[in-house]
Amino acid sequence: MYSFKNDYSEGAHPAILKALLETNLSQQEGYCEDEYALETAKMLRTYLESSDADIHFISGGTQANLVVISSILRPHESVIAPITGHIYVHETGAIEATGHRISTIDTNDGKLTPGDVEKVLLAHTDEHMVKPKMVFISNTTEVGTIYTRNELIALKEYCSANDLFLYLDGARLGSALCAKNNDVTLPDLAKYTDAFYIGGTKNGALLGEAIVINNDLLKKEFRFFLKQRGALLAKGRIMALQFRELFKNDIYFENARHANSMAQKMSKAIAESGFSFLTQSTTNQIFPILPNTLIEELNKNLGFYIWSKTDDHNSVIRLVTSWATPEGEVDKFIDILRKDI
Amino acid sequence: MYSFKNDYSEGAHPAILKALLETNLSQQEGYCEDEYALETAKMLRTYLESSDADIHFISGGTQANLVVISSILRPHESVIAPITGHIYVHETGAIEATGHRISTIDTNDGKLTPGDVEKVLLAHTDEHMVKPKMVFISNTTEVGTIYTRNELIALKEYCSANDLFLYLDGARLGSALCAKNNDVTLPDLAKYTDAFYIGGTKNGALLGEAIVINNDLLKKEFRFFLKQRGALLAKGRIMALQFRELFKNDIYFENARHANSMAQKMSKAIAESGFSFLTQSTTNQIFPILPNTLIEELNKNLGFYIWSKTDDHNSVIRLVTSWATPEGEVDKFIDILRKDI
Amino acid sequence: MYSFKNDYSEGAHPAILKALLETNLSQQEGYCEDEYALETAKMLRTYLESSDADIHFISGGTQANLVVISSILRPHESVIAPITGHIYVHETGAIEATGHRISTIDTNDGKLTPGDVEKVLLAHTDEHMVKPKMVFISNTTEVGTIYTRNELIALKEYCSANDLFLYLDGARLGSALCAKNNDVTLPDLAKYTDAFYIGGTKNGALLGEAIVINNDLLKKEFRFFLKQRGALLAKGRIMALQFRELFKNDIYFENARHANSMAQKMSKAIAESGFSFLTQSTTNQIFPILPNTLIEELNKNLGFYIWSKTDDHNSVIRLVTSWATPEGEVDKFIDILRKDI
Amino acid sequence: MYSFKNDYSEGAHPAILKALLETNLSQQEGYCEDEYALETAKMLRTYLESSDADIHFISGGTQANLVVISSILRPHESVIAPITGHIYVHETGAIEATGHRISTIDTNDGKLTPGDVEKVLLAHTDEHMVKPKMVFISNTTEVGTIYTRNELIALKEYCSANDLFLYLDGARLGSALCAKNNDVTLPDLAKYTDAFYIGGTKNGALLGEAIVINNDLLKKEFRFFLKQRGALLAKGRIMALQFRELFKNDIYFENARHANSMAQKMSKAIAESGFSFLTQSTTNQIFPILPNTLIEELNKNLGFYIWSKTDDHNSVIRLVTSWATPEGEVDKFIDILRKDI
Repeated sequence: MYSFKNDYSEGAHPAILKALLETNLSQQEGYCEDEYALETAKMLRTYLESSDADIHFISGGTQANLVVISSILRPHESVIAPITGHIYVHETGAIEATGHRISTIDTNDGKLTPGDVEKVLLAHTDEHMVKPKMVFISNTTEVGTIYTRNELIALKEYCSANDLFLYLDGARLGSALCAKNNDVTLPDLAKYTDAFYIGGTKNGALLGEAIVINNDLLKKEFRFFLKQRGALLAKGRIMALQFRELFKNDIYFENARHANSMAQKMSKAIAESGFSFLTQSTTNQIFPILPNTLIEELNKNLGFYIWSKTDDHNSVIRLVTSWATPEGEVDKFIDILRKDI
Repeated sequence: MYSFKNDYSEGAHPAILKALLETNLSQQEGYCEDEYALETAKMLRTYLESSDADIHFISGGTQANLVVISSILRPHESVIAPITGHIYVHETGAIEATGHRISTIDTNDGKLTPGDVEKVLLAHTDEHMVKPKMVFISNTTEVGTIYTRNELIALKEYCSANDLFLYLDGARLGSALCAKNNDVTLPDLAKYTDAFYIGGTKNGALLGEAIVINNDLLKKEFRFFLKQRGALLAKGRIMALQFRELFKNDIYFENARHANSMAQKMSKAIAESGFSFLTQSTTNQIFPILPNTLIEELNKNLGFYIWSKTDDHNSVIRLVTSWATPEGEVDKFIDILRKDI
Repeated sequence: MYSFKNDYSEGAHPAILKALLETNLSQQEGYCEDEYALETAKMLRTYLESSDADIHFISGGTQANLVVISSILRPHESVIAPITGHIYVHETGAIEATGHRISTIDTNDGKLTPGDVEKVLLAHTDEHMVKPKMVFISNTTEVGTIYTRNELIALKEYCSANDLFLYLDGARLGSALCAKNNDVTLPDLAKYTDAFYIGGTKNGALLGEAIVINNDLLKKEFRFFLKQRGALLAKGRIMALQFRELFKNDIYFENARHANSMAQKMSKAIAESGFSFLTQSTTNQIFPILPNTLIEELNKNLGFYIWSKTDDHNSVIRLVTSWATPEGEVDKFIDILRKDI
Repeated sequence: MYSFKNDYSEGAHPAILKALLETNLSQQEGYCEDEYALETAKMLRTYLESSDADIHFISGGTQANLVVISSILRPHESVIAPITGHIYVHETGAIEATGHRISTIDTNDGKLTPGDVEKVLLAHTDEHMVKPKMVFISNTTEVGTIYTRNELIALKEYCSANDLFLYLDGARLGSALCAKNNDVTLPDLAKYTDAFYIGGTKNGALLGEAIVINNDLLKKEFRFFLKQRGALLAKGRIMALQFRELFKNDIYFENARHANSMAQKMSKAIAESGFSFLTQSTTNQIFPILPNTLIEELNKNLGFYIWSKTDDHNSVIRLVTSWATPEGEVDKFIDILRKDI
């Protein structure tokens, strides 16, 4: 039974496996001091139009978040995040385990605005409270939405004016950058965030994420933090090589475009069938609100998660597509949908 | 120039890459709930002759150590380790970062005895001091030595009698188990430790380690700890599959035997040339004491680390071999050695 | 200008200073192993009708909270608290600094019900989320309300049934126990909480709180936790002696009764003047909603904090009375109030 | 039976109790923003000849150490300390509980030299190891010795040249400053340390220490750190007032001189009786090596701790005197000593 549960159900793009085979017996330095790491970092800097971004390759997103955030904050400082943020919802208190509070903001669309952040700042007035010092956002957000360039710039400007760092979780950055209504670019991310990561695991890598540090203040001794949290891998080469392959021939973007188009094809059919959505997603995660009877029918043939209950008769489901989703499975979904309404 | 710097300079055993290719498009559950994880855990339990060991697959050794140790200790408890222990020397304070002291013991051979541990217990008498609660050992040790079965049993018995957990870092466990003078088995490790890990990164995997938890007390909610420390990977399948391949046809042991025999061939030649060693290693790391002039000569053709200075004219070097070390490079080392003395 | 800002503006009840003078040159053991600590713990156990409660004397409330909570929770566990809870609002992230999330619940009256707690439990379903393991409540709450005996029992029963510890912050416990509508007793607290503390700082001590641990599981090695967090004081005798004096002649309750009656006298006058309150407080903190013009007038003669803005013309102020509040100052407040409306 | 066990066996100097009585009903701001805190900080700055030192009053020494050290270090940084250091020996891993390693140095006299520190720096070479960032010393040391002015300056110069902070634990600073062979002054401490604390608990206060921060970099937001660790007390006034009394009429120095002279009187008698000492102490802690039979005899009449075993027939004992030690008890000790040898 085909699964739309997530975008990490398959292995890796074939180009990655091919490169692993080809480089297998080449001896390399350990701990991301190998040739591929240097080469790939250089390549990514070109994409970023940033000659001095620091790039670090690690194994997963929770790790990226906890290493970056704990490397930046001093003990009394907190990170502001939307209440839908992955660090708040799905990382088992990883940030708190490094000693820091997440100051959450309620949102409907998973996004933060300067006004949201300001409310948190105004509520933190003295040394009896934590001191908010950075802002965490995700792009795509955890509910499939994306930031526009202007929204990102506005947030960064607010952060800069208020002595806050801006960090972006890019677990699904490919999908965001390739959404039809997107106008954010990689160079924008290099300019308008202090740090972010480019997600590999959810866009065709075996596993791995590339942390990008733009702010010079945050670069110093970052490898110590990686090592201390168990994120500096002896065979860092494996991570670096994958990103080389993903970006060498724009596979990263092709993967994301495919995933997006598969999700959007389902989205269009769902809308045409008269159903609405929890959020307006143009990316590879969509959240339709469907009758429970239809959900049951779909579930006989296809896998997906039920996200939340809407009322006694309807629920939100989450459908996720990936670089590897066959169009035939999407069509099968649409067929069942149309047949059952 | 060939490098004897470490045993993680190459990629992975070809069987692993082959399996990755073959399973690439199979959709699997995330976070180590995939078929390969279940299958491999079952296979390892057979090797361990332990039907109820818990097995978890993660990406690296520092991570394994910090997750296991911090999951076991309460805030006021410390872990006892030899002063050569990886957690003390080469993990950037990863254990302290989780809140715990490492109570160190001086050793020459990297090993701990019940007598060593007792000295630490006797020095910790009341609530003004940390309370030692677990013992950390490595096999092979960081200086290439191994524990005998009797030594392991004696340590475990002492720990059990004194309310201490025994944890074994098996980054180079393959090499230990395949050393010519070894009498420890995988079932022994299941019986005589509370937890340990089977190292993949340094014995032919792309990356990955398998944590084995034997003590029921330590099994509960362990996946929470993995997730919180960034160690529960979305594509856990990648780790599990590699261990399946390593153990399916005994590749794990073949790899280690090859690495050991390459190192021992060099060791024999060095001894025959009249040089001595820092430690008596029968495994894939050897530590000869050589004249600086010879070291310089060797270094023109081969890569390795200088471990420590012995006196003004001699130094210890570390030579490490791997599953992939070509015998020709070993012979080249021996040739230079013999030519230059 | 007299201040109603808080209940720790003055020194200590005279009986305490007298006892300090009388015992000054008596040599005592350090670290709460002195005669006064033993004697006072015994006395408190009689009050608690609990022969085996553990009693520890420390210097402040934030310290009490962080030591108790961090001693109980394992790394992945969280504490549930009302969003008004002191640990969430006014302790600078002290709990997160020990590695734990506070899972908050919105409340209007500062109190938690089993239904509130259940909502948190239902939202935490697997190892990708923290695991709620204890419930934090305050009595009086931070907004002046108190728990009834039945409410406390219901909460404790829910906690016991759901494997949660119940901890009560008693910074203003005296005021709660002496409120006119209170039916909770010290023996109830010994029975229906796992741990709590009896606040001294805010009820007539120079400084100091008495932690009471009822649950045997939480008693073990508690002095290690105290010492590790800097809470085991060399001259613990100073803390213990104060509690001896506070309880020896029921001064603790007299102090609280006086503070309550002073606040309630103001409360009555405010209500009679036609104003309402943020919360229904029968204790020594009251939160009237007053016109800004009246607040300004009051502020010319008396000190207090503005708690929150209600609308453009009215605000909530907080008035706090203490064991030392002179009735004349209360009358002055009432005079101004009546004159100005 | 009189006790020479420690210097915190009694209450407080009478001037302190008198001041508590006199100021008891004065209403003051909380959290060290009271008049006494401001007045005393100003007075101490005059003593320190430093117009911009920051002064914070807290309740105990372990707390002082853990708050200062954890406020300074970033996660990967360690503190260098002598192996006799209080933070290593007697604080239950308080520093590690904040996430940091203590890098220890073996010493006989409890003191560190630049050469000692250099050895630690040379052993920490890359990101696989912690990064030493501050040096912890005590004056008096935990074994009764003191630093000379030149030794202090040399250490500070080495620290400055090597990007290390220098922090001094002054639990027994009074005794150090008043030792007959001392040439260090309070202004020296303001110049040649980045931070230190003036111990009150062990020199005549009820309880309390005064943290002095000299380095501007370390002053910022320090009150957040105090609050987060439970060290910012509601009635900070109690701490401040005590320091006002101790320094107003030089009671601090009188107390220390008395304690020193009592210890030195015993020391002289012990030396004249032909016994030697573990360390050369000119302060209020002395460590004579005595025959076990004599120790037994002394112990019938006087209390003290046995520090360590020297051989089968002799042991080191620790004798501690205080501001309150009656000369008659010292004479009694000397009488028994002379009678029994």
